[in-house]
Amino acid sequence: MARFRLDVEYVGTRYSGWQVQKNARTVQGALHEAVREVAKRADFESYGAGRTDAGVHALQQVAHLDLETRLPPETLRRALNDQLPADIHVLRIEKVTRQFHARHSALARAYLYQIARRRTAFGKPLVWWIKDALEVRAIAEAARGFEGMHDFSSFADAEAREGETRVKLERVEVREAGELILVRVLGSHFLWKMVRRMVGVLAEVGRGSLAPGEVERLLRQPSDVPAKLTAPPSGLFLERVLYEGDAPLRPIRPVLNL
Amino acid sequence: MARFRLDVEYVGTRYSGWQVQKNARTVQGALHEAVREVAKRADFESYGAGRTDAGVHALQQVAHLDLETRLPPETLRRALNDQLPADIHVLRIEKVTRQFHARHSALARAYLYQIARRRTAFGKPLVWWIKDALEVRAIAEAARGFEGMHDFSSFADAEAREGETRVKLERVEVREAGELILVRVLGSHFLWKMVRRMVGVLAEVGRGSLAPGEVERLLRQPSDVPAKLTAPPSGLFLERVLYEGDAPLRPIRPVLNL
Repeated sequence: MARFRLDVEYVGTRYSGWQVQKNARTVQGALHEAVREVAKRADFESYGAGRTDAGVHALQQVAHLDLETRLPPETLRRALNDQLPADIHVLRIEKVTRQFHARHSALARAYLYQIARRRTAFGKPLVWWIKDALEVRAIAEAARGFEGMHDFSSFADAEAREGETRVKLERVEVREAGELILVRVLGSHFLWKMVRRMVGVLAEVGRGSLAPGEVERLLRQPSDVPAKLTAPPSGLFLERVLYEGDAPLRPIRPVLNL
Repeated sequence: MARFRLDVEYVGTRYSGWQVQKNARTVQGALHEAVREVAKRADFESYGAGRTDAGVHALQQVAHLDLETRLPPETLRRALNDQLPADIHVLRIEKVTRQFHARHSALARAYLYQIARRRTAFGKPLVWWIKDALEVRAIAEAARGFEGMHDFSSFADAEAREGETRVKLERVEVREAGELILVRVLGSHFLWKMVRRMVGVLAEVGRGSLAPGEVERLLRQPSDVPAKLTAPPSGLFLERVLYEGDAPLRPIRPVLNL
């Protein structure tokens, strides 16, 4: 059985998230279907680095695939892409050792969120359009409040609150690009719905309804405010999963030029 | 009856082109439906600057609309956008005099074409993916052959050949942007299917199957080669329609960052 590392991009709009589910269309499910078709066997397993939610996209999700095959990685990649639906694309495949584990070997993950300041014919499935005027400087100030090690209980889904809720965020960047406001969060790991709740809070700060300093309070005290402000999945991208030896993150840039 | 200038962007994928047709979904048809809904009347007329084909997109189509209404332009714009499907968006509306005619007052039009060098989960409806290796320098050299005044009979649809087929192209630009090759054509007017046939020929030059100098021959002698090479509508955008007093063209840039 060989182990392959797969780097995959997808538009999450049509899918109930990454992870295989019975009776729901998922990205991993579509990938498995393609593997079955190409390898003509069913005794394989795959494991994703991050479980993206329904409607969330990926510029680079990473999975490992344990599969018995004689196909060289590039041949396997092309064959899979020939089978996959248009909104899923395997960017790279390489053979790795059994030491590589898509989730456990990951050193860091970066998520990108696209807020649009205007309605757009091209961007609807890839942005969160906010009609209200947004103050970017306030958003950037509030974003810095998330950096470092904090207890993100108030930003995690109830289920996630039962485990370890302290997370260290290396960097939270905010950048304007045309009519878009981009938020990029880099950290070793993330709790379920955490990024969307952070962005929801940042948007509220941008609107002027929350002071930038409120972020600190939400990180110190339990609160149901972030849950109420959860940003929609359409604007969220799993941007990169970083492993030892990988190229560093590129400067932040939008998926779409608006 | 007031005349309004409308600047409109749309994803052409779901539409049988711009122009109203019976029994077909068109962009102008969807716009008319929205106007009827908002203005509560049917005695209005609109006129588009360029008739984009089925599947062709627009970053800025311009139309004029003759409509009896008391709504100020910005109120009208918002009301229309509330009614329009997600893939059509009115960017701007302004009141103009009867001297303004969307088609006749236009000084120039710019079309943008996106060729993708790789399969992409995000770009399929907005690019032409070419699997073969492409030599961009050869494409750029061939592109220069189109500049100036030429007889584009071989690049026009049969119907268009009956009229005037000489067209002056101000500029044909070729630029690489990540995994995209962008072709932008600026001219006073265009013949039906002309841009897609130019791009089809340029792609063939990029593949090495046609010499860059062949463009000159195709412009001098009647040929059915360009028709056979017609590029798909998915990669084509009506980028700008330029009128007196309008801001100049921005530097060429992709719709999508690939």
